[in-house]
Amino acid sequence: MSHLRKDPLVKRWVVVATKRRHRPRKVEECPFCPGNEGLTPPEVLRIPEKKDWQVRVVPNLFPILGDHGETTRSPFYRSRPGKGFHEIIIETPLHNRHIAELELNNLKLVLDTYQHRLREFNDLSWIRYTLIFKNYGRRAGASLKHSHSQVVAMPLLPKRVAEELTSAKAYYRRHRRCLFCQIIAEEKETEDRIIVSNRHYLAFVPYAARIPYEIWIMPIRHQAYFDRVSDDEKFAFAEIIQSCLKRLVKVLDDPPFNFFLHTGPNHLDAGDYYHYHLVIMPVTTILGGFELGSGFYVNQSLAEEDAQRLREAG
Amino acid sequence: MSHLRKDPLVKRWVVVATKRRHRPRKVEECPFCPGNEGLTPPEVLRIPEKKDWQVRVVPNLFPILGDHGETTRSPFYRSRPGKGFHEIIIETPLHNRHIAELELNNLKLVLDTYQHRLREFNDLSWIRYTLIFKNYGRRAGASLKHSHSQVVAMPLLPKRVAEELTSAKAYYRRHRRCLFCQIIAEEKETEDRIIVSNRHYLAFVPYAARIPYEIWIMPIRHQAYFDRVSDDEKFAFAEIIQSCLKRLVKVLDDPPFNFFLHTGPNHLDAGDYYHYHLVIMPVTTILGGFELGSGFYVNQSLAEEDAQRLREAG
Repeated sequence: MSHLRKDPLVKRWVVVATKRRHRPRKVEECPFCPGNEGLTPPEVLRIPEKKDWQVRVVPNLFPILGDHGETTRSPFYRSRPGKGFHEIIIETPLHNRHIAELELNNLKLVLDTYQHRLREFNDLSWIRYTLIFKNYGRRAGASLKHSHSQVVAMPLLPKRVAEELTSAKAYYRRHRRCLFCQIIAEEKETEDRIIVSNRHYLAFVPYAARIPYEIWIMPIRHQAYFDRVSDDEKFAFAEIIQSCLKRLVKVLDDPPFNFFLHTGPNHLDAGDYYHYHLVIMPVTTILGGFELGSGFYVNQSLAEEDAQRLREAG
Repeated sequence: MSHLRKDPLVKRWVVVATKRRHRPRKVEECPFCPGNEGLTPPEVLRIPEKKDWQVRVVPNLFPILGDHGETTRSPFYRSRPGKGFHEIIIETPLHNRHIAELELNNLKLVLDTYQHRLREFNDLSWIRYTLIFKNYGRRAGASLKHSHSQVVAMPLLPKRVAEELTSAKAYYRRHRRCLFCQIIAEEKETEDRIIVSNRHYLAFVPYAARIPYEIWIMPIRHQAYFDRVSDDEKFAFAEIIQSCLKRLVKVLDDPPFNFFLHTGPNHLDAGDYYHYHLVIMPVTTILGGFELGSGFYVNQSLAEEDAQRLREAG
């Protein structure tokens, strides 16, 4: 049963999802393997739609949002029911296959699935944002080994996305130019933070990387919404994601990592000033009291040096 | 050598401190033990000022800020030199003593020292904020076992503190009342998130706790600035901090934790609307792609249940 509570100090919502503490630490049988389809809730999507699926989407048994309970009653504190959806995208039938080692066609199907879920949730007027992300490895928060991504559709705009939209909008008003397009231009000009690029995408270590080996992947052509990209773009996206992940595996010896996809919220007219992008964050740092108390990060690496190492690992 | 870089998307500063990667993973001799004073940089403060000190302050050998290097040169990205101070407060001469097990007089000396350092840095016009925090345990980011806190004085207002100031100021304008005082009133009214209180302080699990067993300690009397509190208040503060930490040790079996002290920035006239407070965060959760991508948190615990457990552990 989940509900949302708003922090009165920093205006940030917290999802209270007590059911999630019942997630098993170990499972006997992998619920994501072919043959074990009965161990998951009924599937939402299967590609292809026959027995030998490549990608499968199922509701999360221990959802962050969706299984919503009562709100709290207070004249001062704000809460709301934890309405939404939380799905698992099983990326491959193969139990031990790292996402960096998927067939390119398979990874393209995963991206098709991201698009499919975004489109589906965009049709619901009360959904304000759909966040797609992946946790790989225990230290990145993954409780199951079998390669999967997650989709959370929520009735709120996430704090972090709202901050990006605010500054991108302000930048657009001042310069009549997309802030993300400007970042891409700067990176292409400087070159020393670029990891790899292809016909549609640029991958680089951001100037103010929070942690060592943080990676941003952006479409070179201005495009706010991932749910509108073409098949050709998705192939190129799969290629560059895979290239970056292979480099991370090589340089950091198969690190735990998270990635998330930020795309323009469909209900906002962000087409001019927003630009979808994927952020990959290997688990390389422990956050301490400084980070928690300040909201700043301390990065022990130079973005330019990390980019060089990732570039050379190609 | 450190410098600061500003993220153009979310306007957050990152400290790039490459020297910190040379921090040793293991040390042969504890540099914080009596007799090893020569292993630290020359001390800034010693209490009492004789051989048998109780508390000692030394510059951090691997500072986040202070050892400042060049900035980057870009017409687009913003950087600044990593000016500032980063000190270690050695809380006790005893190598194996948990802060929860310090003599109350000793912990009071630690709080005196917090106040001393705040006052000292407040006198520097270019310092915008002094953050005091503690990391305990490897998983909380501590690289040395001997009990210590840290002080970082910086030329910027931290993002997190700025967010608190913004909403506290807006609340004060609307209601002519301190937001923190209102929170205290709500908690006293509801009672079910209170852990313990004494003549000057209230300790509770906040309504929108980010993680299980998060604890906020606030002075009941309105006071924005920790550097102005009295001896009697510091004794009561030491008492309640110790009481909360003992409860955490009992309920979570000696968990790693962070705490940080937020106090009003001296150069801002925040006396009416801000209220200093200490936040204790045990390491109970791994942040995943959802938290990184949204800026929201998922808490598997109910604040009210956590508070009850901590209350009963007294």
